[in-house]
Amino acid sequence: MSKVLVIGAGGVSSVAVHKMAMNADIFSHITLASRTKSKCDAIAQSVKSRFGVDIDTAAIDADDVTATTALIQKVQPELVVNLALPYQDLSIMDACLAAGVDYLDTANYEPRDEAKFEYKWQWAYQDRFKDAGLMALLGSGFDPGVTSVFTTYIKKHLLDSIETLDILDCNGGDTGLPFATNFNPEINLREVTANSRHWENGQWVEGPALSHKQTFDFEGVGPKNMYLMYHEELESLAKFYPEIKRIRFWMTFGDSYLKHLEVLENIGMTSIEPMQFQGREIIPIEFLKALLPEPASLGPITKGKTNIGVIATGLKDGVKKTVYVNNICDHEEAYAETGNQAVSYTTGVPAMIGAALMVTGQWKGDGVFNMEQLDPDPFMDMLNKHGLPWKVQDLDAPLDF
Amino acid sequence: MSKVLVIGAGGVSSVAVHKMAMNADIFSHITLASRTKSKCDAIAQSVKSRFGVDIDTAAIDADDVTATTALIQKVQPELVVNLALPYQDLSIMDACLAAGVDYLDTANYEPRDEAKFEYKWQWAYQDRFKDAGLMALLGSGFDPGVTSVFTTYIKKHLLDSIETLDILDCNGGDTGLPFATNFNPEINLREVTANSRHWENGQWVEGPALSHKQTFDFEGVGPKNMYLMYHEELESLAKFYPEIKRIRFWMTFGDSYLKHLEVLENIGMTSIEPMQFQGREIIPIEFLKALLPEPASLGPITKGKTNIGVIATGLKDGVKKTVYVNNICDHEEAYAETGNQAVSYTTGVPAMIGAALMVTGQWKGDGVFNMEQLDPDPFMDMLNKHGLPWKVQDLDAPLDF
Repeated sequence: MSKVLVIGAGGVSSVAVHKMAMNADIFSHITLASRTKSKCDAIAQSVKSRFGVDIDTAAIDADDVTATTALIQKVQPELVVNLALPYQDLSIMDACLAAGVDYLDTANYEPRDEAKFEYKWQWAYQDRFKDAGLMALLGSGFDPGVTSVFTTYIKKHLLDSIETLDILDCNGGDTGLPFATNFNPEINLREVTANSRHWENGQWVEGPALSHKQTFDFEGVGPKNMYLMYHEELESLAKFYPEIKRIRFWMTFGDSYLKHLEVLENIGMTSIEPMQFQGREIIPIEFLKALLPEPASLGPITKGKTNIGVIATGLKDGVKKTVYVNNICDHEEAYAETGNQAVSYTTGVPAMIGAALMVTGQWKGDGVFNMEQLDPDPFMDMLNKHGLPWKVQDLDAPLDF
Repeated sequence: MSKVLVIGAGGVSSVAVHKMAMNADIFSHITLASRTKSKCDAIAQSVKSRFGVDIDTAAIDADDVTATTALIQKVQPELVVNLALPYQDLSIMDACLAAGVDYLDTANYEPRDEAKFEYKWQWAYQDRFKDAGLMALLGSGFDPGVTSVFTTYIKKHLLDSIETLDILDCNGGDTGLPFATNFNPEINLREVTANSRHWENGQWVEGPALSHKQTFDFEGVGPKNMYLMYHEELESLAKFYPEIKRIRFWMTFGDSYLKHLEVLENIGMTSIEPMQFQGREIIPIEFLKALLPEPASLGPITKGKTNIGVIATGLKDGVKKTVYVNNICDHEEAYAETGNQAVSYTTGVPAMIGAALMVTGQWKGDGVFNMEQLDPDPFMDMLNKHGLPWKVQDLDAPLDF
């Protein structure tokens, strides 16, 4: 029976809060806070009408450490679940330290003015959390998050050693709209337009964005083009599994999505540099965000499935073996349950699970933790029980590209 | 020896003024006026350095009839050459009537708030110009303009009757940039995104924009996809040549141009409807215009040729015959001569020629005139002498699509 404070009121937060309310035996009291209190109230109303559970709401500017500390001290939660923008991770960690409360997030810190995802800023909090006897769990979403848990599970149960690891993220969802991003367009476009980077033989190998393409036949979706990309779990996987020779991340994009992206880049619409327009500064990507549909508006119109998993090749009892662990999630079923489609659902459920493991003491420790450092079994068990069932398949051969 | 007042200071105006200065025996004194006097001064400086001719410059808001009338009265020209935006045709015609001076333009009036090109507004000035003993010449550019002169020439010299007429406008220019429009992006995009419309058996036939595509092998350019479009000379050709059964207009667009256009339409960037952004109204197409390169900046980097002409099928001495009259213009040669590429050059030279024929009295009359109503021979002669040579070919067969 635990009190939690959730910060942020987007799709991921909405899913996490709905799933927490469905597990009132674990989460006895939920407070939801964000910059715009009306967004929290809308989520609270949905939770009340679906599950009859009351949650508290509050307004908070998570960039403001003093205000966030005061809110934590007032709410007195056992855990702060940060589902706000990744720009705000550090200020919320500071507030947790000041208030003496554990911390969890789903995406690592990124500075506003450069498109860079690195753990260094958050890993720098290691000693402070350790000295305070507090736990910070980083990246408890799907990717990062479940993909690292899958890997840890493979290492614990399926393979004695891992040689190569490929993470495959497929969103087969279709909104029927010519162009829309599944989550915050600004974050989405920053990620997709970044250089590709993968880990090979102890070092990072970089390439131009979207230059390396393969086709893969995803169960529940069909054959899709997927592209080599940098994604943040590569950094923690490379750190915690130094024996893996090659770690790659692949994400699917349709030709139409890429066509739109190419044109928007060509004309300068994805730029984060301010430009002069009619006497004031405008940041093109912010204007683009205003033109595109709100990600939240896509929930009711998205059909199809996501399929995210990990393919690992290594040795088992001296024999080379390839295993594939993945989850398939249906957009319409996710929307029916929580009012949010599968991209939010697959991130929000693992946030709830990570929080549950922390507040029940199944995952505990002092300091800053990545998902790879913790026992995968209770997490894998909860995925099956809470809407993200997974399965293991043996593949005949490693990925041959 | 004649005085002219040119209004507007874009690429077309720059070409027309350079060509007038090259024909100082006809244009003894040129005044150039526009909203931004510095643009006029830049053109004047170029004319002075290239040809040693001095021209006067002035600032004028051509939407302001009283101010424009006062400027005309001060300059005392024999002709006002309107090369400003098509939104301003009517106010400049009003000023010419008030000051008692002849008028010429290259593009027909279009209201700012709807993408419509129609002669009705300017034809409504017929009686006023006639009663005042003044002449207004409409559409003395290339298309509209030369395309109508080519048709009139064909009817006078090459065919006894015309059954079908196709206007083919190919711009084979390449800037090396992923996306740029050849002239004012706002006007360009309004034109391209409008429904297609052609004249057939006495009525207009409409279709979706860019839905009807054919490939044609253009001399000097090579095979290009061209698309059925509405273009303003169709209206005057249908009026003055009621015997022609079918009149169509085709323009070439590259696949990349169309891809960019499709995406920009999909995301709403070509909209002329204001939207709310960060507390104020922004018109998306105006923001797009600000993102795209200035058309004037394309002059030095455009390579390749334009090829614009007319294919007519009809009877000559009782025998069916197809003729093709066209001009090929080289972007780099046009730029070397006037500092403007071929899209501006092919419009600016015919504006100069129309003005020359009016001020020398070779073309004269009271009222509002379209190009089809006037003798093509002196115009065709001047095209050959002033940089837009044309040729006549017999084709084996009519266009078979």
